[in-house]
Amino acid sequence: MLQQVGAFDPVSKEEIAGRIEGLKTMMAAQGIDFAVIMQNVDMFYFTGTIQKGLLVIAVDREPLLFIEKSLTRARLDTPLDIIPIDRDRDIRKTLEEKGILRGTGGMELDVLPVRVYERLKSILGHESFVDVSPLIKELRMVKSSYELMQLKKSGAIVSRVFKRAAEVIREGVSEIEIDALLVAEGRMRGHQGFLRMRGFNQEMMNICVFSGRTGGMPSYADVPIAGVGVTPAIAQGSSFFTVEQGVPVIVDYGGGYNGYITDESRLFVAGALKDIFRKPYEIAKEIVEDVAGFGRVGINATELFLRVYQRVKKAGLKEHFMGHGEGQVSFIGHGLGLEINELPVITARHSRILEEGMVFAFEPKFVFPDVGAIGIEVDFIVRKNRLERVTDSPIDIVSV
Amino acid sequence: MLQQVGAFDPVSKEEIAGRIEGLKTMMAAQGIDFAVIMQNVDMFYFTGTIQKGLLVIAVDREPLLFIEKSLTRARLDTPLDIIPIDRDRDIRKTLEEKGILRGTGGMELDVLPVRVYERLKSILGHESFVDVSPLIKELRMVKSSYELMQLKKSGAIVSRVFKRAAEVIREGVSEIEIDALLVAEGRMRGHQGFLRMRGFNQEMMNICVFSGRTGGMPSYADVPIAGVGVTPAIAQGSSFFTVEQGVPVIVDYGGGYNGYITDESRLFVAGALKDIFRKPYEIAKEIVEDVAGFGRVGINATELFLRVYQRVKKAGLKEHFMGHGEGQVSFIGHGLGLEINELPVITARHSRILEEGMVFAFEPKFVFPDVGAIGIEVDFIVRKNRLERVTDSPIDIVSV
Repeated sequence: MLQQVGAFDPVSKEEIAGRIEGLKTMMAAQGIDFAVIMQNVDMFYFTGTIQKGLLVIAVDREPLLFIEKSLTRARLDTPLDIIPIDRDRDIRKTLEEKGILRGTGGMELDVLPVRVYERLKSILGHESFVDVSPLIKELRMVKSSYELMQLKKSGAIVSRVFKRAAEVIREGVSEIEIDALLVAEGRMRGHQGFLRMRGFNQEMMNICVFSGRTGGMPSYADVPIAGVGVTPAIAQGSSFFTVEQGVPVIVDYGGGYNGYITDESRLFVAGALKDIFRKPYEIAKEIVEDVAGFGRVGINATELFLRVYQRVKKAGLKEHFMGHGEGQVSFIGHGLGLEINELPVITARHSRILEEGMVFAFEPKFVFPDVGAIGIEVDFIVRKNRLERVTDSPIDIVSV
Repeated sequence: MLQQVGAFDPVSKEEIAGRIEGLKTMMAAQGIDFAVIMQNVDMFYFTGTIQKGLLVIAVDREPLLFIEKSLTRARLDTPLDIIPIDRDRDIRKTLEEKGILRGTGGMELDVLPVRVYERLKSILGHESFVDVSPLIKELRMVKSSYELMQLKKSGAIVSRVFKRAAEVIREGVSEIEIDALLVAEGRMRGHQGFLRMRGFNQEMMNICVFSGRTGGMPSYADVPIAGVGVTPAIAQGSSFFTVEQGVPVIVDYGGGYNGYITDESRLFVAGALKDIFRKPYEIAKEIVEDVAGFGRVGINATELFLRVYQRVKKAGLKEHFMGHGEGQVSFIGHGLGLEINELPVITARHSRILEEGMVFAFEPKFVFPDVGAIGIEVDFIVRKNRLERVTDSPIDIVSV
């Protein structure tokens, strides 16, 4: 049935094998003897399926993929051999027989809830575990050519949505109406339905539309602009506020194709852009174009951040950069892939030499409280001599 | 700015105080001296805001709400006093001064990741914690009249979406196209944007449209019908399959208003319903109507399940009930509120006497692999002498 759909590119056996070998190498270097992987995104990365089960990777063995439910679906999804189990505790016997439960184990301690972890330790009769997530994040940071293809298909949905945005954004239309129509546009083009953000309490919308003052509301979320939303229970995203003459509308949209997330923002304006937004718009555009040429393999992410920050300071826009007041965040870019908060982070704080195949969203944005916000976001792939755009969507502000 | 939106009913100081008193009473009975609450949904329930911070409830004190970010937003959202902090570790001093860090603490160990938990213990210099989530779930199980009002507003979005469904479902239209148009319809009516499901790896769509065979694909998800989706990375929800003559289309949609989730399913068919689906449709309808009269305060959820199960067995539909083969699940209903998997669970396994104000989705569904699926889902409020429907949307299959 899945084959008939033809809506995604299945991952190859070789691709999966390469990823698992990559993790084994990192584990060996860190003295981790085996890892038990359960989070759905990591499972998908290492197996091609998110069906209920556990993946055990020992440094000196073939991977063991235990599946509880659904076996039918897992067999369609993964090129790996499957060991069927009735319940999670069935894995202990197999692991003992294979002599795997020795030394230091790894689990995804950044996302695994305490009760799940305690249960696993008791099932395995093994107490010594460290956090294997930093290694998985490091591995997932550099994308294969297969992954870059998925990201480009995800980006194609984004480009289509921005085209449609120019048709639906008009003075007087509400953020939430624009939101609804654009999410529908993306979904009809094959958007996977939702996006993923790693970590406790991390949630996100597929789209946020900011029509003006709503872009200036600070938020719990670690983003420069989060919006007001329609309820304090969500407290982010589009609201019932409407598009006004001369105030830029930011459409921040996340594509999702076969698990892979893209994240770009474009600008639209009804009438002539108000004066206060003109300079920051030009600076944002200049920064995106400058960084596309400056960024490349071997550049440190901190250099990239500081180059941008110098330009922003020189323009006298420091106070408005990446939020305002308590809403200000300390990064200008974030890695992307199966989750929206991957490595690398482009900030002054984390030294990170850019490598071929890293992918990140780059988002110079400026916030003017009680007035509005303006900015651009594009996704870049790190190449030898430049940064390559993931989408081909133009970045200029669109008059509507 | 939020006041201008007027899109939700703020929670009152008295409502919040009642909830906190409720938890204190349960904590005292269990010997828990204080609780540290961090999960966004529980924070919202006890404070009215999900801004970044921690809520500390000690059995013999006023609640302490520490907020890191955003103070501006938190002050708009919550009727509680706020203690501003720069970072989480700032709370220790206040808690020590007030003599709170004594005895047994409680944390949400079903959702709190290991690393967050370890960090909190180290910050507090306190080691003795038990899981306070079972108490919170028990408390949240019975809804106040304010909460029932929110649920009914959430249900009004659902009713509107089902009306629109009759206009967009036609032979040859794909599941994903129907999905896109109906999600947009709900969002324009004020849907909050996404739904929440408690627990590790728990994810869900706002809508699932099943056009036939896709309803028979088993899944990792603990639901009778999950669909195929458009990628193994999500592996649930609508697909590119299209509506066929005589095969029922199930639209399973979750409303979301001010945090409160509703979850109902309706049936649509192009042409005459195929014979195989006629009897299960009649049985599903009969079961919903029967249970609405039979269910009430004082009935055990297990009685309710067994009554339904007897009817299904008598009809010879046991094998198809609530999934098929490995896809079969053991419940026929689940609690609803701020999360979609609340208490009570309507199953043979968990004894639970129904109380006034409990709310649950009730979903007799039948799956015929390789052919299709059929069923109805409605949300009920438990009342003294009956079950009250949350929405007024008719349950009959609609010809399109």
